[in-house]
Amino acid sequence: MTVAELQVTPITGSVAAPEGFRATGVSCGIKSKGLDLALIVSDVAASAAAVFTTNKALAAPVLVSKALLAASHGHARVIAINSGCANACTGPDGHATADAMADAAAKAMGSERSNVLVASTGVIGVALDREKVTAGIQKAASALTRDGGALAARAIMTTDPFPKAEAVVVDTPIGRFKVGGIAKGSGMIEPLMATMLAVVTTDAGVAPSLLQRALTAVTDVTFNAISVDGECSTNDCVFALANGASGVTIGEAELPVFVEALRRVCEPLAIGIVRGGEGATKLVTIDVTGAASAAEAKRAARAIANSPLVKTAIHGADPNWGRLVAVAGRAGVAFDLDRARVQLGEVELFANGRPYDERAPDASRHLQQADVHVQVDLGTGGEGSARMWTCDLSAEYVRINAEYRT
Amino acid sequence: MTVAELQVTPITGSVAAPEGFRATGVSCGIKSKGLDLALIVSDVAASAAAVFTTNKALAAPVLVSKALLAASHGHARVIAINSGCANACTGPDGHATADAMADAAAKAMGSERSNVLVASTGVIGVALDREKVTAGIQKAASALTRDGGALAARAIMTTDPFPKAEAVVVDTPIGRFKVGGIAKGSGMIEPLMATMLAVVTTDAGVAPSLLQRALTAVTDVTFNAISVDGECSTNDCVFALANGASGVTIGEAELPVFVEALRRVCEPLAIGIVRGGEGATKLVTIDVTGAASAAEAKRAARAIANSPLVKTAIHGADPNWGRLVAVAGRAGVAFDLDRARVQLGEVELFANGRPYDERAPDASRHLQQADVHVQVDLGTGGEGSARMWTCDLSAEYVRINAEYRT
Repeated sequence: MTVAELQVTPITGSVAAPEGFRATGVSCGIKSKGLDLALIVSDVAASAAAVFTTNKALAAPVLVSKALLAASHGHARVIAINSGCANACTGPDGHATADAMADAAAKAMGSERSNVLVASTGVIGVALDREKVTAGIQKAASALTRDGGALAARAIMTTDPFPKAEAVVVDTPIGRFKVGGIAKGSGMIEPLMATMLAVVTTDAGVAPSLLQRALTAVTDVTFNAISVDGECSTNDCVFALANGASGVTIGEAELPVFVEALRRVCEPLAIGIVRGGEGATKLVTIDVTGAASAAEAKRAARAIANSPLVKTAIHGADPNWGRLVAVAGRAGVAFDLDRARVQLGEVELFANGRPYDERAPDASRHLQQADVHVQVDLGTGGEGSARMWTCDLSAEYVRINAEYRT
Repeated sequence: MTVAELQVTPITGSVAAPEGFRATGVSCGIKSKGLDLALIVSDVAASAAAVFTTNKALAAPVLVSKALLAASHGHARVIAINSGCANACTGPDGHATADAMADAAAKAMGSERSNVLVASTGVIGVALDREKVTAGIQKAASALTRDGGALAARAIMTTDPFPKAEAVVVDTPIGRFKVGGIAKGSGMIEPLMATMLAVVTTDAGVAPSLLQRALTAVTDVTFNAISVDGECSTNDCVFALANGASGVTIGEAELPVFVEALRRVCEPLAIGIVRGGEGATKLVTIDVTGAASAAEAKRAARAIANSPLVKTAIHGADPNWGRLVAVAGRAGVAFDLDRARVQLGEVELFANGRPYDERAPDASRHLQQADVHVQVDLGTGGEGSARMWTCDLSAEYVRINAEYRT
């Protein structure tokens, strides 16, 4: 089976769209108002995989989920997530609260404790109310439905301007399965938000080790290929569950197809996080080509995505190719100025070692759109390429993040 | 001779304060108004050293100066610098113009061509007018004076809000010598500015290889320890000249003393660049301690200095210790959350794995000052430490850099 044989059709729904999953979101008083607790449950123990933040200041729920996933050898039935409080930098007490979340979820769902995963998102350095969060998990357990994914997507939001939910039906020669997902991103109107979370589910049957490989590969080109401001939080995690309810089983041979299906859900979720970035007014797609390797292409793309000079120029619709050249040149990768190329939208602004400034007005018109495309060829003649997504940097970002907290 | 035996006294003046140096700044029409050409000349060929940008998109004058310094085996008599045009990304024509600057300076001063260094600063991707710049060099050659350093300091400015000039007299057991310097920084009100330049001079006698070692060591803890926005330009260079006119000769044994004297000039110049950073309202001194190594301390300090979340919080006087912990945790260095410590001014806000939020009002009062001190201990118990200087990130930075150019 090849990727070309894959038919992917978007459908309404998210994490509970695949067979054998239920979900919900409830309010338990951690936030002053609105949904703040999400529960996502598979009818049977599912294969589970996770990608965790690389931040060394790990939040308590990240430590607890890592331990649970190791204890279950890559299986889970229940994911409990609260928003409004990150339970990060909260010491031994915070760790006990994350443990209590797992206990409450296991008890409420009649599941083994090791088959639970937990996550928290919200303010850093504030104690998570143990009674509220465990009562919320109990409440959610009795509210699970087949169409509760939309509530779960809303319950994990902090200051995201909109919920992020996706689902697809995948038709293949060996049968039909579904993939769904939810994500929340970086809205830092409240300070100290511990940012990115995502959950993807599928009713395909995938062994834990294969599911982990697929999730790592897809995260690399989706959630790890976005940047709002180059920060990496104490709480970031992406969970995947595969419960086999569709009857379709993914083996080694089908892995590329499954990876592609997973990517089709994760890419729009990741892009949604960027669109909802603080102060963002534009989605910027960055393609780097002509790099000595894929790793060097990604490094250059990341440098461009995080450059305040590039992001402010795009915000101001200034076709400032010189900043792109300067960032590519300082990215620590092979770069040949005489053969480098910079293109904004369809407009080539720098090539053959010289600028085409007469085209600047056309490029500026492109930059005035909400979706902007930046292409930089590093000129090495190499095959390395990478894509990243970022947003512009606006005065609104500064206003949001400079807001006085005390 | 030890560093303790050193007496350093600040004096008025800059690059021409040491004996045997003259300087000037003139106007030659590259900028629409104001001084735009600086000439710094030693009476005799001096030892010369340089630190160049690591950007791979090297500007023509950087390429030319590198070649000249190699040809002279570390000697120079004349430094010619224009502002208003970076002569970067300008192809073979731009290279010929940088060559013509060296030719004009050699001819005007009756110097060997290899004893010239050139630099340009200003807009990237615009041709530098060859006639104007060479005529300017000729004009400057006949305007050199012993007190012309202040004019040189002004002639290298682009949109810097103030000139940066320093000089000191150094008294040591083996005699007296002087060190002077000028620098220009990153004011990006005009877009595409290729940013940092500095020249330091001394009338101590220092062999080229020793001078290079001293300059590299000092640059590391001064010009390479500052950040306005984490960008690195196509034109950055620091030049040092040592002409021996004081009669004091620095040998291997005196090198630590000479390094310290050089540092006393370069540190205030570097801090001046930060104070004059775009949109800056505060100077932020960052001390990282408790790192596994000095390199790891510097890496963490740089991550903090370039974090938009930290810089916006300081702008808003928000004592947001959680952002400092999160950045230290993601900096890719050893970090122990349970033993880490965050202090703003005199106020300890996070230690022993827990916050002291009741002290936030005191910390906020500290952040309302123009000079802010951030201390982060990474908690590894290691001896590694590093200091960096940065500025806050204001909405004004975004406005300046988003300004529409075409």
